[in-house]
Amino acid sequence: MSAPRWLSPAEQRAWRTHLALHKLLMHRLDRELQEHALSVNDYEILVNLSESPDRRLRMSDLADATIQSRSRLSHQISRMEAKGLVVREDCRDDRRGTFAVLTDEGWQTIQRVAPDHVSSVREHFIDRLTDDQLKLLDDAYEPIVEHLKKLR
Amino acid sequence: MSAPRWLSPAEQRAWRTHLALHKLLMHRLDRELQEHALSVNDYEILVNLSESPDRRLRMSDLADATIQSRSRLSHQISRMEAKGLVVREDCRDDRRGTFAVLTDEGWQTIQRVAPDHVSSVREHFIDRLTDDQLKLLDDAYEPIVEHLKKLR
Repeated sequence: MSAPRWLSPAEQRAWRTHLALHKLLMHRLDRELQEHALSVNDYEILVNLSESPDRRLRMSDLADATIQSRSRLSHQISRMEAKGLVVREDCRDDRRGTFAVLTDEGWQTIQRVAPDHVSSVREHFIDRLTDDQLKLLDDAYEPIVEHLKKLR
Repeated sequence: MSAPRWLSPAEQRAWRTHLALHKLLMHRLDRELQEHALSVNDYEILVNLSESPDRRLRMSDLADATIQSRSRLSHQISRMEAKGLVVREDCRDDRRGTFAVLTDEGWQTIQRVAPDHVSSVREHFIDRLTDDQLKLLDDAYEPIVEHLKKLR
């Protein structure tokens, strides 16, 4: 048991700034998506499905892609089914499998909402960083993402 | 209505890396805190109360400090009350106010868990960034935090 290595003031500041930035940003993006009756989590599911072949993903792959538990995703998909944005489909040939499938309404929704959402992401995040800062951010975080993915 | 300014590949990459980093990191920290029967959200409440005078905060101030709605915080505090970590106390002199108060058990819990948690934060985030990267991160994010706080 060695003594804890507490964070230095600079480390503490960077850590708290990271946490605050993320929470405030998600809160803001959620609020702007509410005008379209969506949450950030809904939007992320729509994006993942819209970029997949046949606009469908196995639930386990969608849980991996959106970094959440199967049970949490299942609740989320039920809420989105109720709104007509997605449907579940069982795959008879594959015991592993229920799929989440984007409906036409879900597809039209992401087409309609995407311009506003990208404008929010620009206004509150991307356009407030220089190209150099964006590159430094990506260079700093990308290896950590790889590290954390290996632990899952 | 001007055409949407879609993100460039570099912008898209930085944005997705930021989102993935945060989700994976919270997932990992949650998992390591589970050994102490706490979540990241529980921990954050304990830290905020432990750093406050008399280890207490008005619920509205705690909601602001942890950047969440009053109703979500209220559920969170109920769960933590059931575990004996905090209690609610009404303030008779102040109509605005219910306070959340850290119990002795809550105080002992944060003392016991903090060394493990800081070690997790170091292992999965802080120690994977150089001092320069930490400074650049803070410099880049701090003005965005200020911008977003003004919008709340």
